[in-house]
Amino acid sequence: MTLSADTRAKLMTVSTATIATALFKRGLRNQMIQGVGPVGGPNGSNMVGPAYTLRYIPAREDLNPITVFQDPTHPQRAGVEACPVGAVMVIDSRKDPRAASAGSILVTRLMVRGCAGIVTDGGFRDSPEIAALSMRAYHARPSAPTNLTCHQAVDLNVPIGCGDAPVWPGDVIVGDDEGVIVIPAHLADEIAHETVEMTAFEDFVT
Amino acid sequence: MTLSADTRAKLMTVSTATIATALFKRGLRNQMIQGVGPVGGPNGSNMVGPAYTLRYIPAREDLNPITVFQDPTHPQRAGVEACPVGAVMVIDSRKDPRAASAGSILVTRLMVRGCAGIVTDGGFRDSPEIAALSMRAYHARPSAPTNLTCHQAVDLNVPIGCGDAPVWPGDVIVGDDEGVIVIPAHLADEIAHETVEMTAFEDFVT
Amino acid sequence: MTLSADTRAKLMTVSTATIATALFKRGLRNQMIQGVGPVGGPNGSNMVGPAYTLRYIPAREDLNPITVFQDPTHPQRAGVEACPVGAVMVIDSRKDPRAASAGSILVTRLMVRGCAGIVTDGGFRDSPEIAALSMRAYHARPSAPTNLTCHQAVDLNVPIGCGDAPVWPGDVIVGDDEGVIVIPAHLADEIAHETVEMTAFEDFVT
Amino acid sequence: MTLSADTRAKLMTVSTATIATALFKRGLRNQMIQGVGPVGGPNGSNMVGPAYTLRYIPAREDLNPITVFQDPTHPQRAGVEACPVGAVMVIDSRKDPRAASAGSILVTRLMVRGCAGIVTDGGFRDSPEIAALSMRAYHARPSAPTNLTCHQAVDLNVPIGCGDAPVWPGDVIVGDDEGVIVIPAHLADEIAHETVEMTAFEDFVT
Amino acid sequence: MTLSADTRAKLMTVSTATIATALFKRGLRNQMIQGVGPVGGPNGSNMVGPAYTLRYIPAREDLNPITVFQDPTHPQRAGVEACPVGAVMVIDSRKDPRAASAGSILVTRLMVRGCAGIVTDGGFRDSPEIAALSMRAYHARPSAPTNLTCHQAVDLNVPIGCGDAPVWPGDVIVGDDEGVIVIPAHLADEIAHETVEMTAFEDFVT
Amino acid sequence: MTLSADTRAKLMTVSTATIATALFKRGLRNQMIQGVGPVGGPNGSNMVGPAYTLRYIPAREDLNPITVFQDPTHPQRAGVEACPVGAVMVIDSRKDPRAASAGSILVTRLMVRGCAGIVTDGGFRDSPEIAALSMRAYHARPSAPTNLTCHQAVDLNVPIGCGDAPVWPGDVIVGDDEGVIVIPAHLADEIAHETVEMTAFEDFVT
Repeated sequence: MTLSADTRAKLMTVSTATIATALFKRGLRNQMIQGVGPVGGPNGSNMVGPAYTLRYIPAREDLNPITVFQDPTHPQRAGVEACPVGAVMVIDSRKDPRAASAGSILVTRLMVRGCAGIVTDGGFRDSPEIAALSMRAYHARPSAPTNLTCHQAVDLNVPIGCGDAPVWPGDVIVGDDEGVIVIPAHLADEIAHETVEMTAFEDFVT
Repeated sequence: MTLSADTRAKLMTVSTATIATALFKRGLRNQMIQGVGPVGGPNGSNMVGPAYTLRYIPAREDLNPITVFQDPTHPQRAGVEACPVGAVMVIDSRKDPRAASAGSILVTRLMVRGCAGIVTDGGFRDSPEIAALSMRAYHARPSAPTNLTCHQAVDLNVPIGCGDAPVWPGDVIVGDDEGVIVIPAHLADEIAHETVEMTAFEDFVT
Repeated sequence: MTLSADTRAKLMTVSTATIATALFKRGLRNQMIQGVGPVGGPNGSNMVGPAYTLRYIPAREDLNPITVFQDPTHPQRAGVEACPVGAVMVIDSRKDPRAASAGSILVTRLMVRGCAGIVTDGGFRDSPEIAALSMRAYHARPSAPTNLTCHQAVDLNVPIGCGDAPVWPGDVIVGDDEGVIVIPAHLADEIAHETVEMTAFEDFVT
Repeated sequence: MTLSADTRAKLMTVSTATIATALFKRGLRNQMIQGVGPVGGPNGSNMVGPAYTLRYIPAREDLNPITVFQDPTHPQRAGVEACPVGAVMVIDSRKDPRAASAGSILVTRLMVRGCAGIVTDGGFRDSPEIAALSMRAYHARPSAPTNLTCHQAVDLNVPIGCGDAPVWPGDVIVGDDEGVIVIPAHLADEIAHETVEMTAFEDFVT
Repeated sequence: MTLSADTRAKLMTVSTATIATALFKRGLRNQMIQGVGPVGGPNGSNMVGPAYTLRYIPAREDLNPITVFQDPTHPQRAGVEACPVGAVMVIDSRKDPRAASAGSILVTRLMVRGCAGIVTDGGFRDSPEIAALSMRAYHARPSAPTNLTCHQAVDLNVPIGCGDAPVWPGDVIVGDDEGVIVIPAHLADEIAHETVEMTAFEDFVT
Repeated sequence: MTLSADTRAKLMTVSTATIATALFKRGLRNQMIQGVGPVGGPNGSNMVGPAYTLRYIPAREDLNPITVFQDPTHPQRAGVEACPVGAVMVIDSRKDPRAASAGSILVTRLMVRGCAGIVTDGGFRDSPEIAALSMRAYHARPSAPTNLTCHQAVDLNVPIGCGDAPVWPGDVIVGDDEGVIVIPAHLADEIAHETVEMTAFEDFVT
């Protein structure tokens, strides 16, 4: 399932609050990624794209020496190259911000490759540099230690949990100044249509 | 008991830190609403007003369909209309920010009606809009999901807990750039007088 | 709404797990009182009764001297006398076990009066004595400090939250060796009937 | 890599504390599954077996109706049938005990099939029945709600986190009355040998 | 200040709940060591003795190789030898039970030397062996990993925090089946006297 | 051991992320002070200096009347005068931000005396004033209540824990816009040299 240009454009204009209400009407109550916000704070723009996921487990010391960064087939490195243009990388960091989920080099690489954004339920290092990028990034808080300290990448594009929300590959991720929400892929078009109409109505009555 | 114009004016000029010390001298150690800060960050102005409370319990799914928003007698709606001019609405959200305590429509309505502010130990949705209002609002963090997801309004103007502090209707609520503190109603005048003097002295010695 | 003898008898024979499944089928996902267990551990018997609630807020020091215990109209004391025969007292302690929700004198008094049990999302003091009673009690953990330290009783028989579950007066409370669940009053008869049948079927296939 | 009968037999006689020290000597500091204990409490016997893993993500309401239990290909059901004889099933429940990771029917089925044990960093339902089984089970606390409420099984036998420890398929899991520890597969033989010797020495000097 | 035999004998007969009330009357609200219970569960006996403290900080890897256990001047070892006969060792483990505060060898040594008990706001390893000792021990939960993993002993008999309570050397520590409370040294005699009388009165009216 | 001007100058130019990686290479994984950030937010400048520590324990009410502030020998006051020029005061507040670790008067005094910064794993009061100072300060969150409410200063310049990291007097503390890291004193020169080179290389390849 692909994200149409029309749906993407619509979702660039609506809030996560409005989307949450539309999902609530369909019985979906846990689609907000809890506890994450935009690196660098509000800037008024949305992030929209299908989810491409990266899954971490706790790091085991003998498997995570500093030399793993030299391996281009490492899932973290491979994922940054494989994340499709227009997609949002979503990382399952088990809500653990004690070490970084990624740093500015990887996030910049995603941006240069044309990805739409990045989300972790942990933290990013080099967060001041990430805040200055044009691509939006969301995390729980800054975290300077290298990800090898706590996290080991094991899977690409599998279903994950992120901030207590289920994230399936291809789900449509929308971020705004409040946070990030997950729209199940099959609902993206109708939610986009409905929320644009809800927004127009709210603006009218305000 | 009413809040005099003189006491209100004095409390507009003192910090929650100074008030906390004055309350500490009287044996009151738990009057700070823990874990909340100003939506949109520091702006240098105080919020002062008597507490008008709203109490939430966990939402039960069958009692909280989206249609409850059409009911003007719903306690949340009723409370927004009943909160007195000059008062601060204080919401007991059980320190649960997973869904919104309120959104910009209700907060704007409070402001238009002449209320002095709003506080929750949960989160607000539409927080960027709320941050742009002239009325101050305090919460734990932004939270986009509709309050029906987690919260059900059940009571107006009863004693509540908010951020681990006791809040009795009519207690005088003061917010500044650090947070929010609760002055028992019978102490408001003397605390206002004393803290203005303490502040003058501190400014003199600095 | 009253709890029929037949429904009570049925609910004495089924598990909270089976009830949770029956409620889940009806879209009710948050009826388990999270984080509480039986004082003194498993003993194989159920607790069943309609909820009679007691609501605490954080204690304010000047309102909670030791002398309040001499006041028979204090809501905690009044509640222990007013809790109907056959009912379960459910206390909203805001999940705070740092001070006791009640002690053995009050719990014993409830038992002597013919109540069916007591639940708090905080802790009980004198827990070894309470464990020895024939009436079941549930809490988060033992807590020796007097409830005046942290808790002030303010309301009887209003809707409350307990362990993140909504509890409305008259809801039917069932406890077993795993914990405590809340059945909305209007569903008690049908849930009792259905869970007895589910239990018979499970026993047959096991 | 298989677990030899000799190594299994040795590990039945040593404590998780001794194993933790042997792993610490090798630079492995995070192999203890934090926060879990034996269902039903201490009984003096060990659980030993290679890890067979089951991974949960947060449940999405539309994907988890009660009818999924009728599907024998559901990963939870499939896993219970596929877990090898002698293995320990280890479940990544994201440290969320609000709903059950499994119940007595599945745990009993594992036991009947000859598995060595089961571990979750969430909770089990029907815990009194599970406590009565001869196969050991470990969890954080009892949890009556059906796992559909919070958990969706998505993967079998992939690397997971459990209680903040990394668990790779085939790692050797050892449980005693204190908790559960994870021995990397390639170290199992030498750790078994070394800890038996350490235990003998400690018994000698005590 | 020494603990008289009379005061010790009295405190062997009263509950931490009664002591907490007596301290509350004197304005002391935070003397309960929060979150700890007896290793092995209730047994009906009290632990009484003056506090001898041990302070841990987070372990730094280069300072905590396994060889430090061979150093008899290490504060943990020195403390076990220096703790006075009749005293209770109280350990500040920063409420971190991820690694052990001590194990059965050290706890047994304390018992053999005639100490009155041991308390940590972390966890003990070898907890089944400790549960079998005649000397009482209190902790948050079992914890098998060696203390070198997380804890480094740095100080003996200085003021510490334990379970959020202040503990000054020489304060009188009382443990029962509910938990552990700290009586300031200068109040020990009068609290002992008063609580014995309170207990007699309660027994009379029960 | 003193901090050379050359090492200090180098550390003013590198990030905590780079330092964390250099420490990770040496087996040091827990040197980041978890959960603290700059008061007033990012400003692009570093804080560097040897640690001078202050240790708090939980406050006991009778030992902490408001009058203790008049005592110039009180450890908090004495510490502010004794902290060496160029040093960073690091406070062990047991990760408790419910009351202030210090306020603007003490922090200003440190700045005037020529100290390099201040860090607490609790919170500061008067945080807007502190944010306006040229000396950097780091905390968990603002906290208005006087420190007497929760904290009692007991020790100066002893080893402490701060934000789960070990801090030994003389360790070199570096703060940037992401947070604060602790370099063991004996490694400061080589870490400074290495991280400057790492930074140059990263800038070259970016």
